[in-house]
Amino acid sequence: MKLSKALVLALTAVSISAVAGEALVKKAEKAGLKPIPKEASEVLKLIDNPANPLTKEKVELGKKLYFDPRLSKSGLISCNTCHNLAIGGDDNVPVATGHKWRANPHHLNSPTVYNSVFNQKQFWDGRSPDLEDQATGPIQAPPEMDMKAENAVKVVTSIPEYKEAFAKVFPGEKVTIKTIGKAIGAFERTLITPSRYDDYLNGDEKALSKEEKEGLRTFIQVGCASCHNGVGLGGTMAPFPAVGKYKYADLGDFKGDKNGMVKVPTLRNILETAPYFHNGATYDIKEAIAIMGETQLGKKLSKKEIDSIAKFFEALEGRKPKIELPILPAETAATPKPDLN
Amino acid sequence: MKLSKALVLALTAVSISAVAGEALVKKAEKAGLKPIPKEASEVLKLIDNPANPLTKEKVELGKKLYFDPRLSKSGLISCNTCHNLAIGGDDNVPVATGHKWRANPHHLNSPTVYNSVFNQKQFWDGRSPDLEDQATGPIQAPPEMDMKAENAVKVVTSIPEYKEAFAKVFPGEKVTIKTIGKAIGAFERTLITPSRYDDYLNGDEKALSKEEKEGLRTFIQVGCASCHNGVGLGGTMAPFPAVGKYKYADLGDFKGDKNGMVKVPTLRNILETAPYFHNGATYDIKEAIAIMGETQLGKKLSKKEIDSIAKFFEALEGRKPKIELPILPAETAATPKPDLN
Repeated sequence: MKLSKALVLALTAVSISAVAGEALVKKAEKAGLKPIPKEASEVLKLIDNPANPLTKEKVELGKKLYFDPRLSKSGLISCNTCHNLAIGGDDNVPVATGHKWRANPHHLNSPTVYNSVFNQKQFWDGRSPDLEDQATGPIQAPPEMDMKAENAVKVVTSIPEYKEAFAKVFPGEKVTIKTIGKAIGAFERTLITPSRYDDYLNGDEKALSKEEKEGLRTFIQVGCASCHNGVGLGGTMAPFPAVGKYKYADLGDFKGDKNGMVKVPTLRNILETAPYFHNGATYDIKEAIAIMGETQLGKKLSKKEIDSIAKFFEALEGRKPKIELPILPAETAATPKPDLN
Repeated sequence: MKLSKALVLALTAVSISAVAGEALVKKAEKAGLKPIPKEASEVLKLIDNPANPLTKEKVELGKKLYFDPRLSKSGLISCNTCHNLAIGGDDNVPVATGHKWRANPHHLNSPTVYNSVFNQKQFWDGRSPDLEDQATGPIQAPPEMDMKAENAVKVVTSIPEYKEAFAKVFPGEKVTIKTIGKAIGAFERTLITPSRYDDYLNGDEKALSKEEKEGLRTFIQVGCASCHNGVGLGGTMAPFPAVGKYKYADLGDFKGDKNGMVKVPTLRNILETAPYFHNGATYDIKEAIAIMGETQLGKKLSKKEIDSIAKFFEALEGRKPKIELPILPAETAATPKPDLN
């Protein structure tokens, strides 16, 4: 059989492209980029917490609490207020705003809850080891939900359906702010959003457009993946120069952790989670890329590089889990009343 | 065939109870109480608006807008903030609280959105004829979402998915605050919650317990149904004495409509929608029943009557529609930025 010249050329092109594709996946792997696995069992290994194993009942209870504004002093603010699952898992405003319209005193932006399970530490300064612990913070923080821990516990224990659910999910344990955090954390662990980027790294060569692959290549080449890596494309701690001449500067009194490190935000769903940086200083993703190049990589990125990286980000839009709005059990006479002051 | 004495007694008891049951249903009918119909086609007739016919696409668009906080100036408040579908369709606080933590200046409580389609007029002073019109109010009101109408329109038209949906749902119409209200109103029309009370009026004799039937009888006998009637068990306008010595008094400058009338709130899901009255003055349903007896019916109800009516209210807990949280389309560079001030 004699192949036609056109066919030979076509096959050659395909095989070069396949090799190039493979080369890019390898490059990504070498740069520390990891997909959300295809296999459910692999995903479970990645998101589960042996100290607080995922169960259907625990996740369902956590979902209810996540959406319950009665866990706030005012009765108006739930986890979902600042980490709104309808709009990318955050709140779109520069500075987290909570009880009595108070702004976060450190001028900090609410990070997305989606894929936060992939963060090695929680909060911008990484002071919390996991989601179970993190969830107890904003409930009590005066500029957020401003709820006394004992009142959060009273809300739960005054509502028979909640009380029963806690007894089933945490048998023998007293309801405390910690068990509330464990239930909410379990729900949050399930909030992962696989994307075309994952499909590509998992072997679907066609999941990304040519431009997006080019963008991924640029992303790796210029060094973005030195901080934005792992399954989360972020979630570790990185140096925080807080250079005053850029928007990426300290607007409040935030200095990072005790070593001057700041948590690297995930890039998953990044085009849905403006404004950017710990201080929400810009809504413009291209400006954010340019500033990161200068402050973190010490490079002035070209317009072409910035455009290419931004193009790659389109592939990071994830498939969100379907969430049925929970119908919450009614409060009783013993439930603490909302306090707007 | 000779019937045993016991069987005769049993059959007599059944037939007396059936007659008594029928008599109570008749009494309810005579008192103007109407169930949510069993037949979907009958329900549709009841909730549809010929001037804004329900379609699947319109309801889906309205649902998205209902949950979209970007329709507020701050970007933090959606319809669902004060009319939270997870907690009975209201907000649990005495006074509606919105942009910049402002309280409603007339000290008005957020009514539930569930079954609000059955209201003959909307708002406490009945100034709005329907849900389509009502929905445009809180979006713009400074103590609520505080959004300029033109900015609400800009939010929608700056997001391609919304723009396309509007073009499909309202072909040939410009996007205005009115079409936004029409979409939201259409969604709200679907938020009805049939209950065991409806099952009973629709012929299921066993849907109510003996005590609940007794409560329904008391409810009718003492005169509650003279205002709380129709499918909504409320929703018409009634005299508003605003008697100063009761909690049911004017706490702000609310005087009802120009004839001193106030909208009768629905009693559906009433045990989930504390606090009560236009001013949210009490969380105690029994106190609310007692005060209504005195101020509206001129009667001091006995403890037994009050307990019986409260028991009946348990049968008004409705089956809520299943609502999948919408994933909202991402904003663009042209979308107005949130303004927390």
